[in-house]
Amino acid sequence: MARIVQKYGGTSVADVERIRSIAARIKKSYDEKNDVVVVVSARSGVTNELIGKARFLNPSPNDREMDMLLAVGEQETIALTAMALHALGAPAVSRTGGQAGILTDPAHTRARIVSINAENIEAALKDRNIVIVAGFQGVNAEGQITTLGRGGSDLSAIAVASAVKADLCQIFTDVEGVYTADPRIVPDARKLVEISYDEMLELASMGSKVMQARAVEFAKKYRVVFEVRSSFNENPGTIVKEEVVSMEDVVVRGVAVDKSQVKVTVNNISDRPGTAARVFHTLADAEVVVDMIVQNVGRGGRANLTFTVPRDDADRAKKAVEVVLGEIGGGTVAVTNEVAKLSVVGVGMRTHSGVASTLFTALSENNVNIQLISTSEIKISVVIDLARADEAARAVHEAFGLAKEA
Amino acid sequence: MARIVQKYGGTSVADVERIRSIAARIKKSYDEKNDVVVVVSARSGVTNELIGKARFLNPSPNDREMDMLLAVGEQETIALTAMALHALGAPAVSRTGGQAGILTDPAHTRARIVSINAENIEAALKDRNIVIVAGFQGVNAEGQITTLGRGGSDLSAIAVASAVKADLCQIFTDVEGVYTADPRIVPDARKLVEISYDEMLELASMGSKVMQARAVEFAKKYRVVFEVRSSFNENPGTIVKEEVVSMEDVVVRGVAVDKSQVKVTVNNISDRPGTAARVFHTLADAEVVVDMIVQNVGRGGRANLTFTVPRDDADRAKKAVEVVLGEIGGGTVAVTNEVAKLSVVGVGMRTHSGVASTLFTALSENNVNIQLISTSEIKISVVIDLARADEAARAVHEAFGLAKEA
Repeated sequence: MARIVQKYGGTSVADVERIRSIAARIKKSYDEKNDVVVVVSARSGVTNELIGKARFLNPSPNDREMDMLLAVGEQETIALTAMALHALGAPAVSRTGGQAGILTDPAHTRARIVSINAENIEAALKDRNIVIVAGFQGVNAEGQITTLGRGGSDLSAIAVASAVKADLCQIFTDVEGVYTADPRIVPDARKLVEISYDEMLELASMGSKVMQARAVEFAKKYRVVFEVRSSFNENPGTIVKEEVVSMEDVVVRGVAVDKSQVKVTVNNISDRPGTAARVFHTLADAEVVVDMIVQNVGRGGRANLTFTVPRDDADRAKKAVEVVLGEIGGGTVAVTNEVAKLSVVGVGMRTHSGVASTLFTALSENNVNIQLISTSEIKISVVIDLARADEAARAVHEAFGLAKEA
Repeated sequence: MARIVQKYGGTSVADVERIRSIAARIKKSYDEKNDVVVVVSARSGVTNELIGKARFLNPSPNDREMDMLLAVGEQETIALTAMALHALGAPAVSRTGGQAGILTDPAHTRARIVSINAENIEAALKDRNIVIVAGFQGVNAEGQITTLGRGGSDLSAIAVASAVKADLCQIFTDVEGVYTADPRIVPDARKLVEISYDEMLELASMGSKVMQARAVEFAKKYRVVFEVRSSFNENPGTIVKEEVVSMEDVVVRGVAVDKSQVKVTVNNISDRPGTAARVFHTLADAEVVVDMIVQNVGRGGRANLTFTVPRDDADRAKKAVEVVLGEIGGGTVAVTNEVAKLSVVGVGMRTHSGVASTLFTALSENNVNIQLISTSEIKISVVIDLARADEAARAVHEAFGLAKEA
């Protein structure tokens, strides 16, 4: 007997058959005498469909109206999920974001949660109802419907779990959990039993589709223990929680490959204070998200600056840098498309040396050239040739012995 | 410069192209310096689609959840309509039923409007916004989403027009207005310039698809002048308002044919007080809606009772009557399927005689046999053979000279 928040994403509620299937799972948890709160997304595809309609009518639709429009996706799902539970004989009530007490700031389409007044949910739970909450949405202080932006439903679930002091928050999705590497690339990748918030954050920031960093950050801040697991089977998933002592024994938790970025190299620029600042200020103005940054000083007081950006931002980044180069006394800019970023992540890294050495050796033994290196407390990333990325991932996974039971 | 409420039905907002087209029409009215409030329905088809999903999951879905589900239809339309107006450079804000201040009783799926707090709409109008209100929906005192049932969007429009004291309420639909007869049956039928609430009500109760009786009753009660017109062209429609003196000159306003009913004849029942009451009490319990009722006393103290019911209710009606017959000492019941109800409607009828005579003569000259007659203050209805109904309608239309300009 516990208090559980379950979150089902778009693919888990994609059609009425899937909704019927998750209803059975929800009821099972309820029948085990748990208090159950469910957070659901819009069925997959519906958000893009609505955005398509909006853009047909208006190339830059108003943010408030966009929220009014997008909020219908989850509202449909909550009602259908409640009906499916009723058909199974389970009492359930649906709640829009606003009805669930999710108060946000006024920033339409990317609102931040200000607070959750869980009174309404608590009252429904007290009457032994399953409460079905619309993810991704809330209301601002004026009663206007707001949405939370990408990954918003995960955030809703974590925030609701925090508000109702849930014992566990289960994030049901279309993957089985968090793996030591992408199983499509590394066949002997292993599902992790548990992982720390920080490790999960590094994986999320590397483009892992499992969860947005934002929801993980919220969970970390409010110490919400959550589990990532599949809605398509009964297998246990991966528990994400605050770092525990036993975790220290694990040096490297996993290997990730990110193929979504390109490398931008700015050569032969003047090595004076403020040059890099000027470049990145311009990139920020152009709304280019920069990931890795490396600078080397070359000969004759000229410097080389290299960074990675999302593939879609490459042209914008190049143009922005060219303008700056004209103002700061020359230099050249080049984009390398055929790159991948490979990272090893693990909280144990903080207390162990030799991780970099093992990584570089594994790559070198496989003749993979390292173009760029960047490190954080719990991560080492390298940029390598795109064509060699999968092979490199398998070699590194092997070198760290990740296929063995940790 | 006036205050106008415009209502667009499901076919008028069926897709993004149609929404773009009505946005242009709305803007035109706004540019003429009018205060404009728009009430929209869900796009046609979406409600049935949602009901289909609900019934897949649950044969008898919960009413509250049904309202939660169905309300998304209009919410999608209001947001898209506002976006389309923005694209034309017109300021517009959308409002759900609840945000528009539409308060209803708690009867989910068939809620009645209790009051409209128009403050929010008034404030937006004062800032020269076009206000787009979701039809068909409101909230109850507990903040739960409710829907108004069939024809609810028309009712929303009329009620909002009353609340904001609109000069005119325009009901845009897929017909051009109210005709002297159905133009598909009577080729020289003429669009009426104006018609009284009572006449409109009689037409609505005869199955005219133009508007539900409920919205017309509300308009009558609160004296809301409205116009029924097409959203597909610029032609003026039909104004519906309180009876005016000049209307008295018109004896018959129109001819209507209703092919949706069947005739139920109960023969040879005991002619005692309470017999008819017993029959109709049973029918009411069986939720059969009875329209025309005629009783004749025959020979030997036995009576014949005849009434009409919707075709779909025929079996239920027959079975219910058979039970009663067993209890009241016998009689027989028979259903005649091949009938039509033909009615002539007009407020002038009250002050003129001869309408019945003209009607019966026209029918007799065309060898149409009258099976049943029923009259109200402003209507005479007859039940005739279904196969002769269209021909009869043309003859009666001709006999009352309805093709001429009134």
